[in-house]
Amino acid sequence: MLTPEELDRLRVVLVSSRNALNIGAAARAMSNFGFLRLRLVHPYEPAYRGARSAVGAAAVLATSEEYGTVAEAVADCTLVVGTTAVGDRALHHPLKRLETGGDTIREHLRSGNVAVLFGSEKIGLTNEDLSHCHWLMRIPSREEHISMNLGQAVGICLYEFIRDPEGPLPARPEIPSGGRRGKERERFLDDTPATASEVERMTMQLIEALHTSGYVNPAASTDEKVRRLVNRLKLPARDVETWLGILRQLMWKMKSPTS
Amino acid sequence: MLTPEELDRLRVVLVSSRNALNIGAAARAMSNFGFLRLRLVHPYEPAYRGARSAVGAAAVLATSEEYGTVAEAVADCTLVVGTTAVGDRALHHPLKRLETGGDTIREHLRSGNVAVLFGSEKIGLTNEDLSHCHWLMRIPSREEHISMNLGQAVGICLYEFIRDPEGPLPARPEIPSGGRRGKERERFLDDTPATASEVERMTMQLIEALHTSGYVNPAASTDEKVRRLVNRLKLPARDVETWLGILRQLMWKMKSPTS
Repeated sequence: MLTPEELDRLRVVLVSSRNALNIGAAARAMSNFGFLRLRLVHPYEPAYRGARSAVGAAAVLATSEEYGTVAEAVADCTLVVGTTAVGDRALHHPLKRLETGGDTIREHLRSGNVAVLFGSEKIGLTNEDLSHCHWLMRIPSREEHISMNLGQAVGICLYEFIRDPEGPLPARPEIPSGGRRGKERERFLDDTPATASEVERMTMQLIEALHTSGYVNPAASTDEKVRRLVNRLKLPARDVETWLGILRQLMWKMKSPTS
Repeated sequence: MLTPEELDRLRVVLVSSRNALNIGAAARAMSNFGFLRLRLVHPYEPAYRGARSAVGAAAVLATSEEYGTVAEAVADCTLVVGTTAVGDRALHHPLKRLETGGDTIREHLRSGNVAVLFGSEKIGLTNEDLSHCHWLMRIPSREEHISMNLGQAVGICLYEFIRDPEGPLPARPEIPSGGRRGKERERFLDDTPATASEVERMTMQLIEALHTSGYVNPAASTDEKVRRLVNRLKLPARDVETWLGILRQLMWKMKSPTS
């Protein structure tokens, strides 16, 4: 997980963006993932103004900075990465897939500022823009349809930077019903499988119900078949008591069929 | 990397989407990553019609299917996953971060159809929608700004599914200049560092130039300092000949200052 200092070292640089919705979408994704430093190099002014009304993008846009040249926009960065859809544009630069480029960027953010450049909707980054870059990065879109929406491209790159398979989930409120707390509560929420003894309780209850119902002949040795049947269910621990309750209720009903 | 068959087993299900741009953006991201099966559950009709003009989304939208209920839209799937921004909506379902949920989905796609549900822009998935889901998945946006744009959320989830750090880069055209082929060409394109012997050639050439220029006293033992200096450059292999050429040229000029 990136620290607040590391998040603060990334500059998202939009070069010559022409569309207010894309600028707004880029700013919203930045806010979603905690990257707050947006820089625009000669944006189309009506688009830049229009973007300020984008949902959830206001704070990032309010502190965004406008520059006349790429050189000025990346001046405080020690790593400058260009994004490109098209492989042959990258002829004179090392080219990385986002998955591996993201690793390098995360590492660099530990100590230095990183600029990630996104070109205009129509032509991407120019050769002059690219000459400021140390290397280029590509979102692995398929060859048949390579060109991505600018706002989505920014969102996907930022997701890769904050990506953390070990990361936390948001805290959840207490479960309303009284009894479940602590471990019980955790088990209730997850999909931990039932233990063997829980599966066995379920098996025994089901066998009893099958006998009571007349589904199986009391003399027949069907216990193992039923045990395998229950085992194949992959019963979640959180549901064991519910299932036992259902079977008990069915048992009760079978034994008092007249009521 | 997902096979064409695996890509074809994923259904992106948009429930009650209201915005043409979002439907279009979702379809475009699907096309970018090769997932072509879009299903809409009671979309807002003008938005659905409007989306058909979205850039790069035409093919996916042309084959998209409309359903009246979530149950019908997921009927051919053996795994149904809901997306949610808000943790407490997930109270009755296991909740996974996208990074780990993506692993499970990829695995399931090897043999079975998977539906991934995205709710409306305004309220997300309803409790009724969620009741069709086996578990829920969350893009790890920050607590201060949790709610993501629908089109970006779809794009980010699909990127996670096709994500492959070992994946290929697009083929590049031949380098125009004649001589570089095979290994030479590969080295030209990547950022492999120079070998120690290349660094040493560079060092010796620089030492000679420094002596010639009078920058260092011929008697002083500065070779180690220069060697460390050159080592710290992290000279890329592809640039060694260029740098040696520059130094040779400077040498030549220094030795014939009158011309």
